Parts: sequence; C-alpha cells; structure tokens
Amino acid sequence: MGFSNSIYRHLQKISGKPNVTKEKEELLCYSYDATGNSFLPDAVVFPESEEEVARILKLASKEKLVVVPRGAGSGMTGGAVPVKGGLVIVTSRMNKIFDIDENNFLVRVQPGVIVSDIHKTVEEKGLFYPPDPASSSVCTIGGNIGECAGGPRAVKYGVTRDYVLGLRAVLPSGEVIQTGVATVKGVAGYDLTRLIVGSEGTLAVVTQITLKLLPLPATIKTMAVFFDTVQKAAKTVSGIMRETVVPRCVEYMDEACLDLVKDYFSFDLPENTKALLIIELDGDVSSVEKDAQNIKTLCFSYDALDVIVAKDQTEAQKLWDARKALSPVLYKIATNKINEDIVVPIDKIPDMVQVTQKIQKTSGLKVVSFGHAGDGNIHCNIMYNKANENELKRAEKAVDELFDATLSLGGTITGEHGVGMTKMKYLPREIGATQIELMKGIKRVFDPQNILNPGKIF
Amino acid sequence: MGFSNSIYRHLQKISGKPNVTKEKEELLCYSYDATGNSFLPDAVVFPESEEEVARILKLASKEKLVVVPRGAGSGMTGGAVPVKGGLVIVTSRMNKIFDIDENNFLVRVQPGVIVSDIHKTVEEKGLFYPPDPASSSVCTIGGNIGECAGGPRAVKYGVTRDYVLGLRAVLPSGEVIQTGVATVKGVAGYDLTRLIVGSEGTLAVVTQITLKLLPLPATIKTMAVFFDTVQKAAKTVSGIMRETVVPRCVEYMDEACLDLVKDYFSFDLPENTKALLIIELDGDVSSVEKDAQNIKTLCFSYDALDVIVAKDQTEAQKLWDARKALSPVLYKIATNKINEDIVVPIDKIPDMVQVTQKIQKTSGLKVVSFGHAGDGNIHCNIMYNKANENELKRAEKAVDELFDATLSLGGTITGEHGVGMTKMKYLPREIGATQIELMKGIKRVFDPQNILNPGKIF
Repeated sequence: MGFSNSIYRHLQKISGKPNVTKEKEELLCYSYDATGNSFLPDAVVFPESEEEVARILKLASKEKLVVVPRGAGSGMTGGAVPVKGGLVIVTSRMNKIFDIDENNFLVRVQPGVIVSDIHKTVEEKGLFYPPDPASSSVCTIGGNIGECAGGPRAVKYGVTRDYVLGLRAVLPSGEVIQTGVATVKGVAGYDLTRLIVGSEGTLAVVTQITLKLLPLPATIKTMAVFFDTVQKAAKTVSGIMRETVVPRCVEYMDEACLDLVKDYFSFDLPENTKALLIIELDGDVSSVEKDAQNIKTLCFSYDALDVIVAKDQTEAQKLWDARKALSPVLYKIATNKINEDIVVPIDKIPDMVQVTQKIQKTSGLKVVSFGHAGDGNIHCNIMYNKANENELKRAEKAVDELFDATLSLGGTITGEHGVGMTKMKYLPREIGATQIELMKGIKRVFDPQNILNPGKIF
Repeated sequence: MGFSNSIYRHLQKISGKPNVTKEKEELLCYSYDATGNSFLPDAVVFPESEEEVARILKLASKEKLVVVPRGAGSGMTGGAVPVKGGLVIVTSRMNKIFDIDENNFLVRVQPGVIVSDIHKTVEEKGLFYPPDPASSSVCTIGGNIGECAGGPRAVKYGVTRDYVLGLRAVLPSGEVIQTGVATVKGVAGYDLTRLIVGSEGTLAVVTQITLKLLPLPATIKTMAVFFDTVQKAAKTVSGIMRETVVPRCVEYMDEACLDLVKDYFSFDLPENTKALLIIELDGDVSSVEKDAQNIKTLCFSYDALDVIVAKDQTEAQKLWDARKALSPVLYKIATNKINEDIVVPIDKIPDMVQVTQKIQKTSGLKVVSFGHAGDGNIHCNIMYNKANENELKRAEKAVDELFDATLSLGGTITGEHGVGMTKMKYLPREIGATQIELMKGIKRVFDPQNILNPGKIF
C-alpha cells in the first residue's frame, strides 16, 4: 500500500525520469481542482502512451497503489482530487489528435487533448464537435468524458456522451479494453462506452476516444436579450423552448453576474436590466434569419427590455467571453463559492428562480445564478467565506435546501459536473439504495481492489 | 427450478387467472421471434403493472425460475426466445402512454406500447419521436429498448438510446429501480439507463420509460433515386454524407429487393435500374427545398438514372411501404433467410457491396441487401433452404465471411438487432475476452442467479 522508492524507480523506468515527480511543490499543483479542495498525492506521473498507462496500472494493481487519473484539474466536484493520496496520472502529454476522418465524420484523440483544440482542428475541415463546456480552452477531452461534460450547446446538440462512439481504456488491472464502434450504430453487447463516460475515472483510465462529428453549421446568430426581472427571463426561456425552433444555446445570467462582467460587453445594458439571456441559433442562413426574427418577436411579447443581435463574430465572441469568465470572476464577491449545477425541467425554471431568491434571503448569503437555461441546467453559486464558521454552516444549509427543492421539482443535483467528492453525501437523496448497490457492484467488477480514484461518487 | 402447480397458481393470483397460460397452443405463440427460432416456454404471464412484474420476479427469484421478457416478438436475433424454457413475461397489457409533457418535450410510457402509437400520439401535439424501426407498426418500445433499435432516421437523429432519459425497471430480485432523469442533462452516478438500453432483457425488466421528444419538423421531402449499378448507388451515399446537409434517411435497395416490391411504387422504374436510394430530408420549408435541389444535382453528378421527388405524403408513404415490406417479403425468394444487420463506415459501403456480391457468387446463394446506407447499416439477407443441409452449411459459411469482412472494414456485426441467441458465437470476434468478462461481471451484479433471459449475448 505504501509508496516505496522501488515503486518510484519503477515508474521512472516506465515513463522516463523527467516524467515522474514527488517534489512537494509539484505535488501541490496536482492536489486540487476548481472546487479548491486539496489533498496531496504521493507522486505524479505523466505518461505519453497507452502502453505506459497499462504498465503503470499493472504496477499499481500489483502493489495495491491508489491511482487517480487527471486531465486539467478544472473539475467542479473534486473528481481529480487524490483524496486518498496515491499516484496521480496526468494526461497532459497524451495530447495527440490522431486522425480526422472527413468521410465518416469521426476524430480519434488522446485523452489529454484540450477541448478547444478539437474544436479548432475539426472546424478547419468544415466539421463540428458540439460539446463546449465553459472551461473548453483549458479542460481536456478525457476530463469531459470522466464527468460527461455538457455546456451551453446541449440544448440542441446533447452532451459528451452523445458524441463518444468508442473508447480505448486501461482497467485497474492493467488490461487494455476497446469499447464501442466507429459507426453511429452498434449494439454488440452491453454499452461499456457510455458506462465509462461519466464514471469519473473510477472504472478505467481512458487512453483513446473516437468522437462523432457533425457538419459545421453554415451560419450562427447570437443575440442578447434583457429583462427587468429574472422571472420574465425565466418565463421567456420556457416560452422559447416550446417553439419549433431549437436554439443551439439559451444562456441565462442574473443581475449579480451582469454586474461582474458588464465591462466585457460592447454595448451598455438597458436601464433596469436585472437578467440577460444569450440566445444562439445555427443552421442554414435563410432559416436562421427567419428564426431569429421570430425569437426576437417572442422575447418582446414576454416583455424584454431590448434584444441586441450581434453584428459579427467579434461581437458574439464578447458575449461568450463574458459568459465564460463568470465562473472564475465570481470570487470578486466572496472568497469561496459552492457552485452547484442543478437541473430542473425547463418549465420549472421560474420556480427555481424563486427558490434561489428565497435561499439568498434566508441564508443571508449571496446566491448568484447563471447557466444553461435552455436545458434547465442552472449554475447556482452560493458565495461565502470558508474561514467564517457561521457562513460555512449557512452555506451548507443553503446547499441542502437547494438540492431538496431541485429534487422536488423533478430535477437532478448534477447536470454536468458529476458527483466527485463534493456531492457524495447528497447522492442518496436522488438515487435509491438499490441503484447505488448496483453501481458499487459494477465498480467491483472493474476495480476489485478499489485502487482507481477511490472515495468518489458513492 | 421446476415449474410446479403451486407456482402456476401463485402467478394466477398475481396477474389474474385469464392472464396466465400454459396451454400448448398459447405457449407456441410465445416460443419464437422473427428469426424463426422456437423454444417452448413453460408458461406465459401478461402482467398489467409494475407491481405485478415485481411480484412475479420476486417469485421467480425465490423459485430460481427462468424469466424471459417479451414485447411483440419481432426481434431479429432471438432476444425474446425462451431458449431455456421458463416463464415468458409478455408486456402487451402494459400499453399505456401516461403523459405527454409538451413544455419539457417528454413522454412517459409503459414498455408494451407499440412504437407507431407513440409516433401518432406525440405528432398530434406537434412533437416528434424519431426512432422508427421498419417494424414500428407492430414492435413495442420495450423491445426497442432491449435491442436499442435504430431504423432509417438514425442518420440524422440517432437511435433509441439517444431518446431514453430515464427508466423504471424491476431487477431479477423483484426490487424496483429508477434510473436516469427527466431532463436532458444528468450525471448523478453511473449511467444505468444506457446500460439497460441494449441489454436485451438480461439485466432488468423495464416497466416505465421516459422518452425525450423533439419539435415536429415543419416539412419532409422524400426522393427516389435510381442507378444502373449498385456501386454507383453506394458511392452516391458516401458523396451525400460528405455534404453539409444531413438527410434524415438514406435507404438503399438492391435489384433483388426492387423486383420484390416494385408493385408498391406509384411509378415505373427507369430501364436498367439495379439499385434505388430513398432519400428523405426534413426541416424548415425553404431550406429543405434548397437542400433537395442540391442533393438532386449531386445524385446526377454520380450518374443517377433518374431522381423522382414524391409529390405528396401519399406518394412518399408508398415508397416507405415498399421499404418496410421488404423484410417479410423476402421469403418469396427462399424459405429461410439469415438477416444480418452489419454496419461499416459510410465510405466503406462500396467495398461492402463488392463483398456481398462475392459471397453470393462463392456460396451459390442469393444474397439480398437493403438498409440504412446513410449510417452504414446494411441488412444483408442470405437466402437459403434450412431443410437442405448443404445450403445450410453454405449459408453459415457465408455469414462467417460476411462478419469477417465487416470487421476488417472497421464495422460491427450488429447495428440494431442485438446479439441475442443467433450472434452469440460471433461476439468474441468483435469484442475482446476482457470486455466479455466485464459484461458477464455486470450481468452477475444484476442477476446473480442468472434467471433473467439466460443463454443470450455471451
């Protein structure tokens, strides 16, 4: 179980001396994720190939060594945090895009590729990989698979799981498996691919991913819509989603968010603005033009203060920069935040807005909301100061209330961040004991020694 | 293990006397599926509710009784055939559509609902459930979930798995589980929903399904495109799929198929027609009009003999009636068929056509091909006479060659029919021993006594 010098030397042999470390300064860098939770690993290794990963896991299995796979560490629930110490496998050197198959709309990549690099590379060939989490410029596709990342375009295009056709992965034993297919259809045996997607690095270490691509939409139109109450914005969202046009994004920001990022915008906010929707359409030029008109009319019928259509890609990008900056910039409000990615049915968003306003009142803490309104996935950020014990208690109570309200509205406690370490204790509220026992049974099938990312999910 | 009178009486008590049978004539009706394989069950029960299913499985678990769930028995690989006897649970009385949630684009149904009834019911409300297997007028949604059914619209819209948000199901122990969510996003724990989808009734008996719906497309355009060689048709398919417009269907029929169903058409086939593509577009009226023109031009550039655009829904329906009649009508060629639903990458379809032509030559058996060319899913039918031992041998050799060629082209041996009993022995050619062991391990977690649909998949 311990981490001996001989194990360390063995790791050096597998991945090369410069690619293994146990220097305290380096261990610190791989001890935390975006939750701020931090646990020191015993060592960190940076393998370059599947073969190395297999050898590392074979060694770990033999020595009963805890192993935690890690992408960029931008996760929101501690999925990559080594809560039990052990060896962190960082995929940063496994960052190759192997081939783009334009005829069959596929790309094969290693897990350490940055998601926005996939976007850029395939878009140059007129292809499109839709999932686009806010962290796409830093996060890895391996991490996206671990958590089944979503992002704003899920409204129209679905989430990571919908684009993963097949995987290569290494089991905790060191054995290499290949799952899924390289075609859209395929039903040979149980769906191990989608079992591994969203399993938060607890079942296998993914070493290669075959992603489905789409043709790049001919045109994109981005609009900013302003409201003088959050309720009106919320009602507009469910109004839009009842239309026959599915926008590719319907993002929401409340007043506190707007305050933080208004300098990003290329326009002044209309007076009394308390909420913003960013709506984005894509597709054929003529139909997008027509749909944008319809949505504009609809927004005004829901009492929008104004609708601004981005003139060009630069103006649209400014809106998205503001949106994507939100998560880190929130720390201006308070030193700590609890960012919960709850999801409710779309027509329950107005109720959810009421809930968060009520929680803000009763907790005395700032509760800031933004997120993917079009699919009901709201990021509720409870802002507090961890060092203040009273605030910490109130924050935890606020989370409690938030989750209870979410579940009673027919929602889920996590749309795209996963359970990781931070939601473990809440999982049984959503998922029955029998299902959790099934999940634990599946975990034992893949990882009988419980060496792979232990202390997560359940 | 045996099927005593006391068990039979217990079943009568659970589901009511008229809803349990062990009459030979009735057992025969539930002994086979579309493969023609037949094994007599010991009894058949027709429960009406989840509660009855749970009580039946509790009894089965206690008595170590084999249980086989069954929808309409239209499966193509023996998934519902009780190869080990036991009790068949028929879902025909569990045929309620509970509610259509127009605001959130959802419908909740029982497993025994006929798929085309879902289509009709949601379309009346301007909603759309895309999966549409050829058997949709008879097959059940429960069966579609068991096999992860596909159909022609998968090109654009994906397969059954892409529309199942959540399930209620009964484990072999009789315990009821609820999986997934009622929202598009949801990542709380392992993805048990998609593990059960495609598990061919071996993990749990599904009792309720939450399906995702889409807005009904404003317009549909259906075209028939004729070629004087199958190679030209195959090349056109990969040409179309490289375009930025994704048709909702690209179906293919070879000459033998056309011969069988030409009376269905409302037009005469152009002289020398050896292959037909049915191409269907949907979406906004103006863009569909424009895309249809582009595809027409493209087809002629690939040397199409003619392109006929269906004038109206009636004419389009005739094309689809012909396509959907194909599977049963093939028996006019020979008394038996082996229908394999192989999938290859789209740009490998021309190679696959050569393979089937070669197999036809070497086997001396008629090999008829049709299917979902747009997603590479070709239904290759090897026609033979089972009673003739020599033909049977040649047919089996032909299947061997077909699967080997499929796998060497990067494809899969089953796109939408599942493995069931007929493809069991071929599964290890596609899936490594380690993966099969994982699947067996998962099976043991759900069904430690191996009472649920044993003798299937692996």
